[in-house]
Amino acid sequence: MTTRLSGVIPPLVTPLTEDGEVDAGSFKRLIDRLIDAGVSGLFVCGSTSEVALLSDRLRDDVVRIAVDAAQGRVPVLAGVIDTGTLRMIDHARRAEKLGAKGIVATPPFYIAPNPAEIIEHYRALAKAVSVPVIAYNIPSATHVGIPMESLDVLAHEGTIGALKDSSGDIMYFRTAIETIGDAGIGILTGSEVFADLALELGATGIVPGIGNVDPYGYVAIQKAAETGDWETARREQERLIKLFEIVTVADLSRIGFTAGALGSFKMALYQLGVIDNPTTCTPMLPLNDEESEIIRQHLVDAGLKPVR
Amino acid sequence: MTTRLSGVIPPLVTPLTEDGEVDAGSFKRLIDRLIDAGVSGLFVCGSTSEVALLSDRLRDDVVRIAVDAAQGRVPVLAGVIDTGTLRMIDHARRAEKLGAKGIVATPPFYIAPNPAEIIEHYRALAKAVSVPVIAYNIPSATHVGIPMESLDVLAHEGTIGALKDSSGDIMYFRTAIETIGDAGIGILTGSEVFADLALELGATGIVPGIGNVDPYGYVAIQKAAETGDWETARREQERLIKLFEIVTVADLSRIGFTAGALGSFKMALYQLGVIDNPTTCTPMLPLNDEESEIIRQHLVDAGLKPVR
Amino acid sequence: MTTRLSGVIPPLVTPLTEDGEVDAGSFKRLIDRLIDAGVSGLFVCGSTSEVALLSDRLRDDVVRIAVDAAQGRVPVLAGVIDTGTLRMIDHARRAEKLGAKGIVATPPFYIAPNPAEIIEHYRALAKAVSVPVIAYNIPSATHVGIPMESLDVLAHEGTIGALKDSSGDIMYFRTAIETIGDAGIGILTGSEVFADLALELGATGIVPGIGNVDPYGYVAIQKAAETGDWETARREQERLIKLFEIVTVADLSRIGFTAGALGSFKMALYQLGVIDNPTTCTPMLPLNDEESEIIRQHLVDAGLKPVR
Amino acid sequence: MTTRLSGVIPPLVTPLTEDGEVDAGSFKRLIDRLIDAGVSGLFVCGSTSEVALLSDRLRDDVVRIAVDAAQGRVPVLAGVIDTGTLRMIDHARRAEKLGAKGIVATPPFYIAPNPAEIIEHYRALAKAVSVPVIAYNIPSATHVGIPMESLDVLAHEGTIGALKDSSGDIMYFRTAIETIGDAGIGILTGSEVFADLALELGATGIVPGIGNVDPYGYVAIQKAAETGDWETARREQERLIKLFEIVTVADLSRIGFTAGALGSFKMALYQLGVIDNPTTCTPMLPLNDEESEIIRQHLVDAGLKPVR
Repeated sequence: MTTRLSGVIPPLVTPLTEDGEVDAGSFKRLIDRLIDAGVSGLFVCGSTSEVALLSDRLRDDVVRIAVDAAQGRVPVLAGVIDTGTLRMIDHARRAEKLGAKGIVATPPFYIAPNPAEIIEHYRALAKAVSVPVIAYNIPSATHVGIPMESLDVLAHEGTIGALKDSSGDIMYFRTAIETIGDAGIGILTGSEVFADLALELGATGIVPGIGNVDPYGYVAIQKAAETGDWETARREQERLIKLFEIVTVADLSRIGFTAGALGSFKMALYQLGVIDNPTTCTPMLPLNDEESEIIRQHLVDAGLKPVR
Repeated sequence: MTTRLSGVIPPLVTPLTEDGEVDAGSFKRLIDRLIDAGVSGLFVCGSTSEVALLSDRLRDDVVRIAVDAAQGRVPVLAGVIDTGTLRMIDHARRAEKLGAKGIVATPPFYIAPNPAEIIEHYRALAKAVSVPVIAYNIPSATHVGIPMESLDVLAHEGTIGALKDSSGDIMYFRTAIETIGDAGIGILTGSEVFADLALELGATGIVPGIGNVDPYGYVAIQKAAETGDWETARREQERLIKLFEIVTVADLSRIGFTAGALGSFKMALYQLGVIDNPTTCTPMLPLNDEESEIIRQHLVDAGLKPVR
Repeated sequence: MTTRLSGVIPPLVTPLTEDGEVDAGSFKRLIDRLIDAGVSGLFVCGSTSEVALLSDRLRDDVVRIAVDAAQGRVPVLAGVIDTGTLRMIDHARRAEKLGAKGIVATPPFYIAPNPAEIIEHYRALAKAVSVPVIAYNIPSATHVGIPMESLDVLAHEGTIGALKDSSGDIMYFRTAIETIGDAGIGILTGSEVFADLALELGATGIVPGIGNVDPYGYVAIQKAAETGDWETARREQERLIKLFEIVTVADLSRIGFTAGALGSFKMALYQLGVIDNPTTCTPMLPLNDEESEIIRQHLVDAGLKPVR
Repeated sequence: MTTRLSGVIPPLVTPLTEDGEVDAGSFKRLIDRLIDAGVSGLFVCGSTSEVALLSDRLRDDVVRIAVDAAQGRVPVLAGVIDTGTLRMIDHARRAEKLGAKGIVATPPFYIAPNPAEIIEHYRALAKAVSVPVIAYNIPSATHVGIPMESLDVLAHEGTIGALKDSSGDIMYFRTAIETIGDAGIGILTGSEVFADLALELGATGIVPGIGNVDPYGYVAIQKAAETGDWETARREQERLIKLFEIVTVADLSRIGFTAGALGSFKMALYQLGVIDNPTTCTPMLPLNDEESEIIRQHLVDAGLKPVR
C-alpha cells in the first residue's frame, strides 16, 4: 500500500452461520472467488458487511479470517465504522494488529461535527495506527458528509491514504477528483451503478457491493477503462445496473431496506453456491421465497449460473 | 424500578479531565447537586453525555462512578447507544453488571430497519438483561424514528419499561400517550422546552439536558404539575427556554452543532463551580471566550450564580 | 378587522360540481353551518381549499361566493398562495376588490428566499392592498419557513396583521408567542391536533382544516379556553384528534397524500349532507368506497351524523 | 418540433429594466448572441428566468419578445411553471397563442401528488395544447420528483415530447435513458456540470443555465459529443464547472440562494455587455460590489471578456 489504491476492491459481505457466527468456510470460498476474478484488494467490515450490526468480537473474526484467507495475495482493508473517534481508534488498532493493511473510517456520526472537527477526527485516527486511513463518505448511512474543504486539507497534508466515496453524487466525486486529484492518493467510488463514469472521470479504483456477486463484471469494466474502451465499460455497466436491481426486490412493508439490499447479495451468493447460508445479522429479517426467486431470475438474466 | 419511571431524570453530562478521562470528583459533585435538587433518577451515557464519542472503557467508567456516587439514593439508568443490537447487548450487559437499574436504547441506526425489525431489536435486548429496557426515540441523532406501531407492540407485550421521547414533536408524544398510556409504563419526554406541556398531556417524567445546569427549575415544573398549577409550570418553563438558548451561542463556522450545545452545558456547569473543566470529548472543539461570556450572561439572567 | 384576529377561523374546502366548477349551493350551506356553529371568520383559498390547483377564475369565484354567502356576518379572509410576490399581489388585489377583509400569504417558494427577502416580500404585499396581510407559515407545502427574525420585524413594524402557523412545530409557535406576542397582532395556529395547547400558550385563534367537518368541537375548545377549562379543551381535542385520522385513510399507492387528506374532508361533508359532491380538483384522484366507509365510521365515532 | 429536441437549448434569463419590466433590447441581444453561438432552441420562462416570481403579464411579455426576436431561426419553448394543472393549462394556452413551439411543465407542487396523478396532470396538459409538452423534473425547486413509472407511461403513450431532467442525479438520468430511450422523444439534461457525461449516456440535448453566459462552451461540448471526442468534451466541461462557481459567490446571510445564483448569471451578462441591467425580480436582493468583482474574475478565468 505504498502505491495508490486502485482496481476493484469489493466490500465483502460477511457470511454467517445460521446461529450468527462468521462462517469461515463460506468466507474463504468468497475470497478465493474474488481473487480469482482479479480483484486487487478486499474491503471487509464495510457497510456491505453489516458492520453496524456486528459485535466487536464478530468484527475481529471477520478481519482475522479474511487476512488468513487472503494469504497476502491482495491486501485486506478493514472498516472501523462507529459513532466516535475514540471508538474507531479502538477498532483500528485491533484491525491493524490482525493484519489489515488499511483502515476505512467514516466521520463521527450521531453527533453533528463541522468540517474542522472532521479534520481533527482523521488526524487522530492517522496518529493512532501505522497503516493508511481511508476516508469513507457515505452520508446515506451516517447523515454526515465529508466536506470538500476537509478532504482538501486531509489529502494534501497526507493524513488520508485514499477517499472512498459512496455518496451516489457524481458531482461530489468529480469535484473530489478536481480538488485532491493531485495529492497522489487513491480516489475510489463506492458506486455500483456509475463505476464506468467514475473511472472516466479519473477514479483510481472501484468498491462495488454487488462485486461480491459478479466480480468479473467490474474487473471487466476496470480493464476496459484502462484501455479507454468506454463502450465496453458502458455495456458491462448497464448489465450490472440491471443485476443491481436485486437490492430492491424486498417488500419493505415486511423487512427493512438494508435487510433487503444486503440480504439480496447474500441470497445471490447462496444461490450461486458460494456461501452456505443467506443469513443476515439480527435484527434484520430474511427475504422470502418469492423475493428469492426474483433474485435468482436476475442472476440468470445477468448470465450468472445459480446452482440452487 | 418496579414502579413507573417518573419525576425529573436528567441526562447527565460526562465531566472530563483535560486529558479526556472521566473526572470522578466533578461527576460526584454534579450528582450530589442533582440529587439535592430533587431529581428522581440519573440517566448516564445518554446523548448529552457525549456517549457517541466515548470509548467502551470511558462508558464503563461513567456508569461505575455514577452508581458509586448515587449510593442508591436514586437509580442510575445507562444509555447503550450504538448502531446494532449485538453491540447494544454487549453494552447493556456491562452496564447491568456495573449497577445500572435500567438501560436506555435507540433503535439500530446507520442501517435502515423497519418497524418489525425494531420490535425484534428491543425483544433481543430485553432478553439479554434483567433490568428494564427503555426505548429511546431521538431521530435527530439516529435518523431512525420508533414507529408508533412498534411502540404499541413493545409496550403492551411488556418488552419495554418506558419510552423516552426526544423527537421534539409534541404530536408524536401525544400520540404515544394515547397509544401506550394504558400499558402502565413510564412515558418520558426528553424535551427541555415543552416539559410543562408534556406533563399536562400525561408524561410520567422528564429528561431535560439543561436539567444538568438548572435541576431546580425542572423539579419546580414537575412539582407544579403534580398539583395542577400549570401557570407556575409555564412560567418556570419559559424561564428555562431562555436559558436553553445557550445551546445555540456557538459560531457554527468554527465548531460543530453538538460541540456547541453539549459544550454549553459543560461551560455553564464549570462557571457555576460544579465541574472543574468544560472539556468535551475529541474531536469536538471548545467554545471560545466570547461564547462563554454569553453563556455566563444567560446564567445570570436565569437567576443562577456563576462563580467564574 | 381593526381588532386582533381571534376565535375559530376554519380554512374552507372548496365544494366543486362534478365538472369542476365551484358549487355555490354547497358552499353556502357549508358557510351557514360554520357561522351557525360560532366561527368568527372564514378563510377561503387556503391550502385546504385546494388553492394550489384552482385557476385564477376559480379562485375569484370562491372569494365572490364566500363574501356573498357570509353577508357580513363574519369576515372572509382570502389566501393568495403562489410562488412569487408579484403573482400574489395580483391575487391580493383581486381578492380585496371582491370583498376579502384580509389576505393570507406564504413566503415566495419554488425559489429559496432568505430572511431579508421574506421581509421584502411581505412589505410589498402590504403596500399593494389596504386590508391586513396575514403571514402564512406552512413549510410542509412551501418548503420555505418564515424565520423568526423576519416575523419579529414584520410584526413589530406593523407590516403583518397576523401570523397563521401551520408548521406543526409547537416550539415554533411558542417562540412566536414569545417573540411577537407584544405586537398586538393575531397569532393563529393551523394545527388540528394541538389547538388546545396552542390556546394555552397564548394563541388568539385557531384555523383547523377539520373544522369544516366539526366546527362545533373547535368552537367548544375555544370557549373552554376562554374560561381556563383546560380539561374540557383537552377532552374535546382528543376526540377531534381521532376524527382527524380520516386524513390518512387513503391508500397512498393509489392516490396522493393531498388527495386523500383534502378528499376526506369533502367526503365527510358529503356524507353529512353539507355538500353535494365529494369531488376534488384535477389531477387529484378520488377516494374509493372502502376508504369512504372508514371515513363514515369515524364520523359516527366522533358523534357526528352522516346521512349518506 | 416534429423531430427530437436536441442540441443546446439554454434556459434564458429574463433581462429586466431597473423598474422591473422586461427589457426587450437586452433580451434581443441575448437571443441573438445565443443563436449566433449555435444553440438549437430557446427555453424561456424556465427556472433560470425567475419564472416563479414573474406575473402573468411579465411571462407573456417574455414569450412574445422571445418569439419576436428569434424570428423563427430556432424554436422557442416556454415554461408554464405553477402549482396546479388548471393553472398551467392557462399559461400553456397563452404561450401557444404567443408562438411557443413547446411548453415545459413541472408536476403539480405545493400539494403532494402520486405517480398516477402526475400522469393525469400531463395528460390534461397535452390535451389542452397542440404543441408538445416537455416534462420538467426539478425536485430541488418543486420537492416533487417525476417517478420513473410515470415517465415510462407518459413517454411511451406519446403524451410528452421530451424530458428535461434537472434533478442533478445522474442515475435518475441514466435510468430515464434506459427506460424511455426507445420512445423516440427528446431526453435533455438541465445539468450545467455533467453535460458531457449525460451526452455520453445518450442525452439528445442539454439545457444549461450558465449557457446564457457561455453558450460557446456548451455548443463545443455538444459538437465534440457528436464526433465521440469525449476528451475535448470533458476538458470544456471542466472549464465550465469552474465558471459555474459564480452561482455560489453570494453571501447567503445577506441575500437568498436563488438571488445569488440567478443574479450571478445576470451580473455576468451585464459585465459582458449583453444586457443593460443585472436587476433581478422582487423580492430578490442584488449582489454587492465585492461579489460582482469575483464574478468578473471568473469570467476572465474562463476566457470570456467582461467590458464593465
